Amino acid sequence: MGSGKGGVGKSTVAVNLAIALAAMGHKTSLFDADIYGPSLPIMMGLRNTKPKMEGQNTLFPLTKYGIDCMSIGNLVEEAAATIWRGPIVHQVIEQLLRDTRWPGGDFMIIDLPPGTGDTHLTLTQLCELAGAVIVSTPQDVALLDAMKSVAMFQKVEVPVLGLVENMSAFICPKCGTETPIFDKGNAERAAGQSNIPFLGRIPIELSIRVGGDMGKPVTASQPDSVSAQAFRTIAANLVQELEAGH
Amino acid sequence: MGSGKGGVGKSTVAVNLAIALAAMGHKTSLFDADIYGPSLPIMMGLRNTKPKMEGQNTLFPLTKYGIDCMSIGNLVEEAAATIWRGPIVHQVIEQLLRDTRWPGGDFMIIDLPPGTGDTHLTLTQLCELAGAVIVSTPQDVALLDAMKSVAMFQKVEVPVLGLVENMSAFICPKCGTETPIFDKGNAERAAGQSNIPFLGRIPIELSIRVGGDMGKPVTASQPDSVSAQAFRTIAANLVQELEAGH
Repeated sequence: MGSGKGGVGKSTVAVNLAIALAAMGHKTSLFDADIYGPSLPIMMGLRNTKPKMEGQNTLFPLTKYGIDCMSIGNLVEEAAATIWRGPIVHQVIEQLLRDTRWPGGDFMIIDLPPGTGDTHLTLTQLCELAGAVIVSTPQDVALLDAMKSVAMFQKVEVPVLGLVENMSAFICPKCGTETPIFDKGNAERAAGQSNIPFLGRIPIELSIRVGGDMGKPVTASQPDSVSAQAFRTIAANLVQELEAGH
Repeated sequence: MGSGKGGVGKSTVAVNLAIALAAMGHKTSLFDADIYGPSLPIMMGLRNTKPKMEGQNTLFPLTKYGIDCMSIGNLVEEAAATIWRGPIVHQVIEQLLRDTRWPGGDFMIIDLPPGTGDTHLTLTQLCELAGAVIVSTPQDVALLDAMKSVAMFQKVEVPVLGLVENMSAFICPKCGTETPIFDKGNAERAAGQSNIPFLGRIPIELSIRVGGDMGKPVTASQPDSVSAQAFRTIAANLVQELEAGH
C-alpha cells in the first residue's frame, strides 16, 4: 500500500481493505512499515497495547477484527519521535518482519510510509511482493506523487495492482451538495492514461475519519455503509487483479 | 515548516505564509526540502520551469509572487521518482542549499518532508534554524505525528515557534452547515497542553486547494478572502513570536 504523498488516507485504506478481505474469508495480516508515523495502533483500536514477546527476539502479532497486526507504534512510546536515519529504519523493518511470528495466510497488507525512499527499497529487497496498490486523492499534487510511486514500483519490478481514489468529493450531510474539496475523478483518469487498473473510489465521509480516530474502522463498525461497500468493492477488484495474474 | 504527517497541507501553508510575509514587506525565500514529493513547483505556478545556472555549480532561484524559490522539482523531470536512500538525499539538500545564489533577506521558509528522518537531521546540521512551525490537521493521527515533530525539534534544540491548525472543519458553500471532516480545535488544545504558541487556524476551503493546483496561492490570487486573512494572521503571529525572542 503506497501513495507517494502522505495524508491521502493510505493507512485508512490499508486497514479497511484488510478487514474487507478478512470478511471475504481471507486470512489477512497487516504490517505497518511507517516507522516515522505509524497510524495502525490508533486506527485498529490497539493504542497503548504491547505485543507479547517470547525470549529476546520473538514477537507475537496483535489480533483485532480478525487481523494480525504489527506496528512500531506498539513497541515504542506513543509520543516519542523516532529520529532515525535510513540505515536504522532498514534494520528496524527487517527485525519487525523477521522476528514477528506471523501466522501465515492469504494476504499480508504492508502500509508503507509516504515517499519513494529507504523503506520502499528495503521492503522490495526483503520480501517478494505480490504487488503494489497505490492510494491517491484526486488532487494534482497527490496524483503527481502517486505516479512517482507507480514509476518506482515498475522500476523495481513490483507489479502495480491498481490505483484507489480516496477523498473523492464531499457530499454535505445536510443538503446533499457535492463539493470537490480535493477534486474528483482524476485518479481514474490517471490510471487509464498509465494503463493501471482502477480499483475504486472512496468518498470523503465523516464516519471514515471518526472510525479511524476511534479505532473502529468503518468496514468493521458500519458494514452496511456506503463507505464499507466501497472498500469491499476495492477488495474484490484487488483479488480479481491478483487472480488474473498481474 | 514541519508536520510529522504528510498531506496535512504543510506545503500549502508554507507557500501562503511566504506570500503573506512578502506582502508585509519582508524579503522572503522558499526552499522545498521535500525531495521525494516536491509540491512547490505546482503550488507556485512554476511547473516545468528550470532555474538559470552559471557554470557547473551555481543555481539562481526562480522568482514568483515576489518569493525566491528553489525545489528539486524544478531540476528533475516531473514524473521521475527520486528513489534515493538517505545519504543521497542529504547530499542533494546540501547542494541545493549551498549552490543556490540566495538573495538573502528576512525569511527563508523551508518546506520539510513528512516524518522525522534524514532530511530533518540534515537541515538542523546544515543551517542555523530560527525555529520550527508545525502544521497539523485537527485529527488525532495527524496531531500525534505533529507532536513527534515537536519532540524532535526540541531534542535538536530548534525552538518550536508554534502550531498551525489546517483543514479545520468544512463549511458547505451552499447551506452553511459545518462538518468537522478532520475534526476541529484539537490542535489549539494540543498546543496549549504542550506549552507551544498556537499561531492560527485555516478552514477547509475549496479555493485553497484549487489555488494550489493552479499555481495561484489564495493569498496572492484572492487576498481579500477569509483564507488569505487567516494566513496573514498566522504570518503576523509568527513574526511576533520571533520578535519575542523564542
